[in-house]
Amino acid sequence: MSGEDAPTQQQNADEQKQQVEKKPAESPKTENKPDPPPASASTEAAATAAPTEKAPEEDSFSYRALVLTGYGGYDKVKLQVKKGKPALKNGEVMVRVKVCGLNFADLMARQGLYDRLPSPPATPGMECSGIIEAVAEDVTNRKVGDKVLVLNPSGLWKEVAAVAATHTFLMPERMSFEEAAAIPVNYITAYLMLFDFGNLRPNQSVLIHMAAGGVGTAATQLCKTVNDVTVFGTASASKHDTIREGGVTHPIDYRTRDYVEEVRKISPKGLDIVLDPLGGSDTHKGYNLLKPMGKLISYGAANMLSGQKKNLFAVAKTWYQQFSVHTLSLIQGNRSVCGFHLGYLDAETELIDQAMEAVLELYRQGKIKPRIDSTYHLEQVGEAMRKMQERNNIGKIILTTEPMKEEAKKDEAKKEEKDKKKEDKKKEEKKKDETKKEEKKEEKKKDEIKKEEKKEEKKEEKKDEKKADEKKEETKKEEN
Amino acid sequence: MSGEDAPTQQQNADEQKQQVEKKPAESPKTENKPDPPPASASTEAAATAAPTEKAPEEDSFSYRALVLTGYGGYDKVKLQVKKGKPALKNGEVMVRVKVCGLNFADLMARQGLYDRLPSPPATPGMECSGIIEAVAEDVTNRKVGDKVLVLNPSGLWKEVAAVAATHTFLMPERMSFEEAAAIPVNYITAYLMLFDFGNLRPNQSVLIHMAAGGVGTAATQLCKTVNDVTVFGTASASKHDTIREGGVTHPIDYRTRDYVEEVRKISPKGLDIVLDPLGGSDTHKGYNLLKPMGKLISYGAANMLSGQKKNLFAVAKTWYQQFSVHTLSLIQGNRSVCGFHLGYLDAETELIDQAMEAVLELYRQGKIKPRIDSTYHLEQVGEAMRKMQERNNIGKIILTTEPMKEEAKKDEAKKEEKDKKKEDKKKEEKKKDETKKEEKKEEKKKDEIKKEEKKEEKKEEKKDEKKADEKKEETKKEEN
Repeated sequence: MSGEDAPTQQQNADEQKQQVEKKPAESPKTENKPDPPPASASTEAAATAAPTEKAPEEDSFSYRALVLTGYGGYDKVKLQVKKGKPALKNGEVMVRVKVCGLNFADLMARQGLYDRLPSPPATPGMECSGIIEAVAEDVTNRKVGDKVLVLNPSGLWKEVAAVAATHTFLMPERMSFEEAAAIPVNYITAYLMLFDFGNLRPNQSVLIHMAAGGVGTAATQLCKTVNDVTVFGTASASKHDTIREGGVTHPIDYRTRDYVEEVRKISPKGLDIVLDPLGGSDTHKGYNLLKPMGKLISYGAANMLSGQKKNLFAVAKTWYQQFSVHTLSLIQGNRSVCGFHLGYLDAETELIDQAMEAVLELYRQGKIKPRIDSTYHLEQVGEAMRKMQERNNIGKIILTTEPMKEEAKKDEAKKEEKDKKKEDKKKEEKKKDETKKEEKKEEKKKDEIKKEEKKEEKKEEKKDEKKADEKKEETKKEEN
Repeated sequence: MSGEDAPTQQQNADEQKQQVEKKPAESPKTENKPDPPPASASTEAAATAAPTEKAPEEDSFSYRALVLTGYGGYDKVKLQVKKGKPALKNGEVMVRVKVCGLNFADLMARQGLYDRLPSPPATPGMECSGIIEAVAEDVTNRKVGDKVLVLNPSGLWKEVAAVAATHTFLMPERMSFEEAAAIPVNYITAYLMLFDFGNLRPNQSVLIHMAAGGVGTAATQLCKTVNDVTVFGTASASKHDTIREGGVTHPIDYRTRDYVEEVRKISPKGLDIVLDPLGGSDTHKGYNLLKPMGKLISYGAANMLSGQKKNLFAVAKTWYQQFSVHTLSLIQGNRSVCGFHLGYLDAETELIDQAMEAVLELYRQGKIKPRIDSTYHLEQVGEAMRKMQERNNIGKIILTTEPMKEEAKKDEAKKEEKDKKKEDKKKEEKKKDETKKEEKKEEKKKDEIKKEEKKEEKKEEKKDEKKADEKKEETKKEEN
């Protein structure tokens, strides 16, 4: 793994960097870049052109790349221009990137919570789609012009990427670059969780958290490829119609309902599979929702992500509440607990190949189709990350390497200003809300005090009644 | 579950008990028992004969049953004669038991280490084969004369058992009663572990501990129903030829070799599935042997069983070393840890039905065949348990309800005496060994002291050398 991370680090160290300011006048974005070859130019002759030879234009070769410059907020990912063509090592191909996918691991990485990304400065990005522009001499199964999906430990949020040929997969016909960039991480993750660890079969039930997210929508679609699978999906209420259309049988608004109760109402015996990207206390809840022979699959700690910057309290709480289990408990419950992270699987070429082949076959059969939430330009990566972190997406958020038009940039600047104002307003409102809440609390307290007083009064009344009764008894006795 | 255990308890409380002494003269074993109906007498008319009606011979109905009279050694399981026909509740059938299976859970139960058996006095036994002798009025899918395999929480080590019809399964044609009694626990356990939790597929590798045991031989056969599965099996060297014939690719003598090393030699990347019946430190070893996407399935704590009676030290050690795992560790390793125990699954009728149907179909296809190690009479249950606990079996140990012949009993008595002598001799030898070991330890200590002394001497020598060097230096300096 570390060996494969090396090129990224090396690039960061060796290449000249030049930060692209947001002001359009200073953006040298199309400077000196050779045109990407047309997709049809995939001849054998082109494939054998020695890519490592120093071409005359190499010195003037440049490309744009997003770079994480340090751990922190959205602004820590900057757009830079790199000079010099990436050198290809044995087994590598050069990909002209079209579209990149955004993942939770990228957000974690930005906060320094993901150890698979090399230390900053480094380019994030685990998946993309694009066209092969050059291949190393020993690569025989890829050729210039091949349209590919790419899955890599990191380093793909840029216009040109050198990656191992084994990390590329041929795109099926009629698949768009947008769809291709949305497939690798989410669908392979969902596929291996559901069909390897989960062993999903007809008539089973699955709980999918963040059902409107990238993995969530992929998992829902994959569940529907098996007969009569019941899907419980958590998402905020506004997304319920969409995820229901996508295949979720029972959408649950986790913000207003206790999802454990909601599941138990419909499925009193519990669930066959729980996909858990949250960690912390939600893992405990998921475990307790398992039927006999049920499988809990933990694949993240999204609960650690609270806000733009690392929130030590959220991290500590998630760690502290991290689920641990004894085999004796597993035995008595006939349960399984699994952990999954695609980032730690990149040496498993054969496993990934098989899963990808199965996923692409389902695509060809029309049984799955990536749902794109929104497309951003590289320049807008901050906005894209914010949307994902605030869970405002339904489906996949992607980045296109196509440069923004000048007008759009101006709009963008305006929008950013607007967004800032909005956020300030939100903060103010939040403060107001909190003040209101405090007031309500006070009122509640007062009410409670009143109630207590009433109770006391009632008690007194009862005592009086009792006394009266006793007196009556005594009178009766006396009468007897 | 507790509801289903109730009949056994009730029988124990309600019925007259009479302990059968081992002396033949006092054994009233065939007294007043009606002949079991022939297997061919399965007419619809017989099936509708009201079995709960008080027949004239009911009062004289008696049958033999093994009863755990208290927690402890092999002698705590006694053969008793019960009087009165067991009453059938709704949904139940009465089975004339032919052959019973012995399981590790029965040994644990005898020591008070298994909570699925009602408190003593109670009849152990989770599986048997036999012929249906009566059915409750509401039972429509079983009839008198049906040959069945039975899987029950407990209570089957007797000649006549009332069980839920859902706990019975029709025997395939040409299956013997011996084979039928060897199937339910071992094969359903192995099947669900390998194909539900384990999700076993071609080209994978599996570690089977106690590969010569009941679950071990069943699991080996089931592994061989999948293409190119590599089976590592631990067993003592004398059993290697047999288990190799049975399908184990790499037998490992766990008594003389470190099985972790042996596995790593052949499969450096590790294993896809580890079946772990041992618990304690072996669970840790199994976990560390897992490949990415590997599954550890813990299904017992045989390490707790050390000797005939409960060994508090072994129990405490196994508990203390009991494996527990954090989801973060699972995530980073892409691993799964599962717990399995058939005893906690008896409410899962559909699941068990499906697994049993699959197992019986494999039997019909000739792909699996229970391996019977040895058959004992009910009278010999102590001997049978000893053989299992000392792990001297290759395959299944079963009990037949056929009464022993008088001559055999005399031989048995002689054998028992011989065994006792053997055991006494063993104990003596063990003592001798321990004395020798102590002596060796003393010698080792002496050696170590000598070594220490030598080291000290060397140090002194070195010091002297250093001093000499320093002197030389000084001389040199002076010369300069």
